Amino acid sequence: MSLRRLLYPRSVAIVGASDKIGPGFNAWAALQAVGFEGEVHLVNPNRDTLLDRPCHPSLADVPGEPDAVFVAVQQDRVLDVVRQAAAKRAGGLAILSSGFGEAGNDGARTQRELAELAAQHDLAVCGPNCLGFLNFAGRAALFGTSLPNAVSRGGVAAVVQSGSVGIALLNAGRDLGLSHLVTSGNEAVTTVADYLELLVEDPDVRVLVVFLEQLRNPPKFIAACRRALALGKPVVVLKSGRTTRGQQAVMAHTGAVAGSVEVCDAAIRAAGAIQVFSLDELVETALLFSSLERSLKGRGAAMLSLSGGEIALALDAGEQAGLPLPPVSTARQALTELLPPYSHIANPLDLTWAGLYDPTVARRCAQALGEQENVGLIILLQDAPKGLGTQQANRYATLLGMVAEGAALAGVPAVAVSNISGDLHPDYEAMAARHRVPCLRGTAEGLTAVARVLTWGAEGAAQEPPRPAGAAAEAAREILVRAGGRVLAENDGRRVLAAYGVAPLSERVAVTADEAADAAAALGFPVVLKAMVPGIVHKSELGLVRLNIRTAGEAREAAEQLLARARAAAGDGEGGNVRLLVQEMVAPVAEILVGARVDPEFGPVVVVGSGGVQVELFKDVAIRLAPVSPDVAVAMIRETKAGRLLEGWRGRPRGDLDAAAAAVVALSRFIAEFHETIAEVEINPLGVLEEGKGCRPLDCVIVRAPE
Amino acid sequence: MSLRRLLYPRSVAIVGASDKIGPGFNAWAALQAVGFEGEVHLVNPNRDTLLDRPCHPSLADVPGEPDAVFVAVQQDRVLDVVRQAAAKRAGGLAILSSGFGEAGNDGARTQRELAELAAQHDLAVCGPNCLGFLNFAGRAALFGTSLPNAVSRGGVAAVVQSGSVGIALLNAGRDLGLSHLVTSGNEAVTTVADYLELLVEDPDVRVLVVFLEQLRNPPKFIAACRRALALGKPVVVLKSGRTTRGQQAVMAHTGAVAGSVEVCDAAIRAAGAIQVFSLDELVETALLFSSLERSLKGRGAAMLSLSGGEIALALDAGEQAGLPLPPVSTARQALTELLPPYSHIANPLDLTWAGLYDPTVARRCAQALGEQENVGLIILLQDAPKGLGTQQANRYATLLGMVAEGAALAGVPAVAVSNISGDLHPDYEAMAARHRVPCLRGTAEGLTAVARVLTWGAEGAAQEPPRPAGAAAEAAREILVRAGGRVLAENDGRRVLAAYGVAPLSERVAVTADEAADAAAALGFPVVLKAMVPGIVHKSELGLVRLNIRTAGEAREAAEQLLARARAAAGDGEGGNVRLLVQEMVAPVAEILVGARVDPEFGPVVVVGSGGVQVELFKDVAIRLAPVSPDVAVAMIRETKAGRLLEGWRGRPRGDLDAAAAAVVALSRFIAEFHETIAEVEINPLGVLEEGKGCRPLDCVIVRAPE
Repeated sequence: MSLRRLLYPRSVAIVGASDKIGPGFNAWAALQAVGFEGEVHLVNPNRDTLLDRPCHPSLADVPGEPDAVFVAVQQDRVLDVVRQAAAKRAGGLAILSSGFGEAGNDGARTQRELAELAAQHDLAVCGPNCLGFLNFAGRAALFGTSLPNAVSRGGVAAVVQSGSVGIALLNAGRDLGLSHLVTSGNEAVTTVADYLELLVEDPDVRVLVVFLEQLRNPPKFIAACRRALALGKPVVVLKSGRTTRGQQAVMAHTGAVAGSVEVCDAAIRAAGAIQVFSLDELVETALLFSSLERSLKGRGAAMLSLSGGEIALALDAGEQAGLPLPPVSTARQALTELLPPYSHIANPLDLTWAGLYDPTVARRCAQALGEQENVGLIILLQDAPKGLGTQQANRYATLLGMVAEGAALAGVPAVAVSNISGDLHPDYEAMAARHRVPCLRGTAEGLTAVARVLTWGAEGAAQEPPRPAGAAAEAAREILVRAGGRVLAENDGRRVLAAYGVAPLSERVAVTADEAADAAAALGFPVVLKAMVPGIVHKSELGLVRLNIRTAGEAREAAEQLLARARAAAGDGEGGNVRLLVQEMVAPVAEILVGARVDPEFGPVVVVGSGGVQVELFKDVAIRLAPVSPDVAVAMIRETKAGRLLEGWRGRPRGDLDAAAAAVVALSRFIAEFHETIAEVEINPLGVLEEGKGCRPLDCVIVRAPE
Repeated sequence: MSLRRLLYPRSVAIVGASDKIGPGFNAWAALQAVGFEGEVHLVNPNRDTLLDRPCHPSLADVPGEPDAVFVAVQQDRVLDVVRQAAAKRAGGLAILSSGFGEAGNDGARTQRELAELAAQHDLAVCGPNCLGFLNFAGRAALFGTSLPNAVSRGGVAAVVQSGSVGIALLNAGRDLGLSHLVTSGNEAVTTVADYLELLVEDPDVRVLVVFLEQLRNPPKFIAACRRALALGKPVVVLKSGRTTRGQQAVMAHTGAVAGSVEVCDAAIRAAGAIQVFSLDELVETALLFSSLERSLKGRGAAMLSLSGGEIALALDAGEQAGLPLPPVSTARQALTELLPPYSHIANPLDLTWAGLYDPTVARRCAQALGEQENVGLIILLQDAPKGLGTQQANRYATLLGMVAEGAALAGVPAVAVSNISGDLHPDYEAMAARHRVPCLRGTAEGLTAVARVLTWGAEGAAQEPPRPAGAAAEAAREILVRAGGRVLAENDGRRVLAAYGVAPLSERVAVTADEAADAAAALGFPVVLKAMVPGIVHKSELGLVRLNIRTAGEAREAAEQLLARARAAAGDGEGGNVRLLVQEMVAPVAEILVGARVDPEFGPVVVVGSGGVQVELFKDVAIRLAPVSPDVAVAMIRETKAGRLLEGWRGRPRGDLDAAAAAVVALSRFIAEFHETIAEVEINPLGVLEEGKGCRPLDCVIVRAPE
């Protein structure tokens, strides 16, 4: 496989080799730095020897079939080199040269030629417009920029679409422990998904981090992430372009068309990957994941601190991060005995200055908390900035050591989090290193990392594979065939959804006022009356809806008024097609929006949110790739503010959450099965009744895909 | 003034002095460290001499009247020392001892005694349960913890309610440049507001930073902050306890009752202070403010970077931070000539690698952008972590120097922001120091700091002082006197607000169905009909409202139905008091909530938000102390998502923003003037019509204060 040959080469050629500082020299230096043991061929038409070894005038003159070719030449010479590489049956190339997709129409055309050549000859291509890659684990590199004086090597593979981000990670000086760093540049040929697919199988790789501007080939990306999940390797993803202006910048920078942020988030989540929102979060999260040696025994954290003031700060940040902090339970007795009177026994635990004066108190508190069944990890919240005086630094280091010992006795890992994110005091860091305690920096970044470690995989594991289309799909197909129009009538839409188990409203169609009154009586009062006019969707605005009709007499009068209005509103010759819809009137606890559609990049997705104008104004939506399992549907509803209304909000009765979740599952299955012929389905609103009483699609629209 | 004597003493006494490491020794060492030149008296009953000087058995034996007394003795001896200090006519004390308000009922009782003693004898008290204070500017200290090996001194005065936060700031190692550090502890006597009031007048103080768990004495705090604003000194405030759990922690830690987060935010804003949300933000913001030597020539920033990938990240963070990035205008020509073809000329500006290969390009770009009228500050977005290789570090340092030179040529300050918030490469830092460029860390924290600097004072300056009650108040008073009940009837409420200039709905009261039909005809169709029953507020739920009535006939029929329903719903003997309200039916562009109430801590406040259940579900509210000026009212509306509906959202017509703002101003004046007798007023919803057509209070409630 060509990408494997590129990233794990036994022989490399450097086209544009040089002994002067610059990419052609840096590539040589990088090979020395990683300890490359294979053959290196230098190519430079102006030199016979270079760096004390023979130098070839062109790639064609290099002996054998090089696995990997480094290219740092002028843009107009790149395609020639690629053709030579193809002729030499090379595995692939890392092309640093710029002037391709990012540089107007001419560049884009050259990039397309490059992609075609690569496809014809099965060449993997890193770049163009990148810095190449470093493979510490496999001792290989085609990298065009200078390396830091020291790089910490470990189990973190980074794949980044921005060279600058690559440099930042490489030089962060945070002992991230890199196994690989790939800068993927314009991805003319080989994309992040391809690199992930390969790297996830490397036994030296334990954590993967990704910086994305543009996600190409989503299905392959998702598959690679799911494979990582199955192997127990977290994938941490930072994607830029979340805001309108950020998206514009990505488009300007990469020439790519930006997709929907929310759908991309859904795809990352469906893939079981972990999303972060800043480079700092990326570093802290990767650092924490790579420090963990085994799975956690509980899904909660216990936090200790010397400072009530800092605990309040941490709780603010922790709540936003979704950090699970289970209450003190079995540890209460032990903690009460250990701490002074008046201590507030809680999680987080305020050790007060008692924790400093007798550090064994901290050890025993950490152990007691760590032994609680639901605690999987101990956090020490402590600032220890590098400027500290020696006296204080030693005290804090001792505290850290004690907490680490206590956690170890309880069999859980310990993590230190500082509120101030500058460098730490060396004595404190040395103590942390001795006990293998990762030191995370920044209240929000650190606690967010802990929250992600604790909750990782919870939803991914629950994701249900699509089921084959069954009787529901058959029944729906039949209704769809008979119903006319690109947009289905409200009641036809409800029949389709009923086939998927979404209980319909009780409703009847009437032509005259008398029929409407009879229908109302048969349904039972109160009822809602609507006039349906072909081509008119917004009934309320035209006064074509009457709520809360309580007697047959009211129904008849209302029907006559609505018929008169509807005929006046109908177009020429349509007056005779006016129909009355008589519906049971329900009193929902809450109304939510449930929708599903086919995303052009990511395929079928399902959406839950606040109904009406709110869904866009408040961005109160949860989106997942369809289909979803009932568990995921419940999680989606809970994620929205609209969903809170179902959970007994402010003294309201609780809504039928299970029924609402079943409707979400139903729409997700429907869109997954009909994604070729249906563009969109939306229940807006879904009226959710009291617990046990189900829900009703108060209005619904099904739109077919364009032929 | 006693607090001045405490913080700027000429003579101090250390009660509990010692030559062993601990508070009693640290206090002595701190005095040496800050260069205290006054008299120091040591008190320790067990020693005749200590630290090579005489030692007194008790405070009573100290000669003269010490300005400031340091107290680190057992809790049960503290009150004795305070009495001795009173007898010696001391200025004040810093009491480190704990076991007071934070330690149950007994401690709280002792704290009350302490407060009474201090009040009787005009003693300022720092603490108890604190670390004391450092006054670098005035070369004084009563500080119980060891100092770092080096402290950078400057113009930043920090007042913090948590000792740990004080230690973190003192040791952050970020050249914060402290003039003072006060840890205020339990604030039994002297509060943050008192310290601010004094420190703001110190000419050495240029920036004030505050860490709050609990804001005591809000009016004094606001006054001190406003004084700082008037002196051009920013006050940066971090308050913990923003979330439910954070609040609980604050309450457990301080014994204080937590007030409303939103109202406290409003007070901080009304005071012209700058609110931050993490310690890292506090540090970056204070650092940036203290580095600025004069006011900015424009309210926008221009940003430069080598990396399109990092620009997208920065835009995401900048949009959240509200960073004003004005578009490229007058600089376009120059930038186009400087940068390679295909460059994307925008703000932020992607220099691409061109910025490295010829650094003078960066200088000229920075100058061109800095010369744009609306640009007040240049940001260089660049990572330069300490682990960088020398080659790269030098390149980045050169880039920084060039950007700084360009900014200087344009007469604007330059700021460097890194996405990775660890320590910087020393070469890069040295270059920054040479050009006096502050280096901020973390994308979000750094850009948030810049946004705060650029927007500081914009709203505070516009804040209008309360006007004396005038004719509006007189008219309102008259209606209030005549109207009955604790909760005013809907139409009475509208009349009160009309006196303040809120245009009422056209409406009439009718008793019979015929009267209602006549009233409807007189108002003009369509109309709304409501039945008013004494004691019934929720009319819609009982079917007592009918919208969109279009003819006199419909009005008569509807009135009869409503009267029947209302009489059935009315309590015994109330059937005769049913009235019909006939109102013009308006078609608002949007409906918002406008309310005002009297907060028990902060006094009159005014609120704008989404109406209905959304206001609490989405927390979509803007709150300010009342009264507000029209400018502030517009800012409040714009701050809410509800307000976006007024600005031509998704193709809707624009709403009458000025009229809506006038209603906000009206309610704010009304509550300010009637804060003694009115508890609450709420227009929910205020129907905002199309631009130029005003707005209408569709429903409104006025509630009197309990007698």
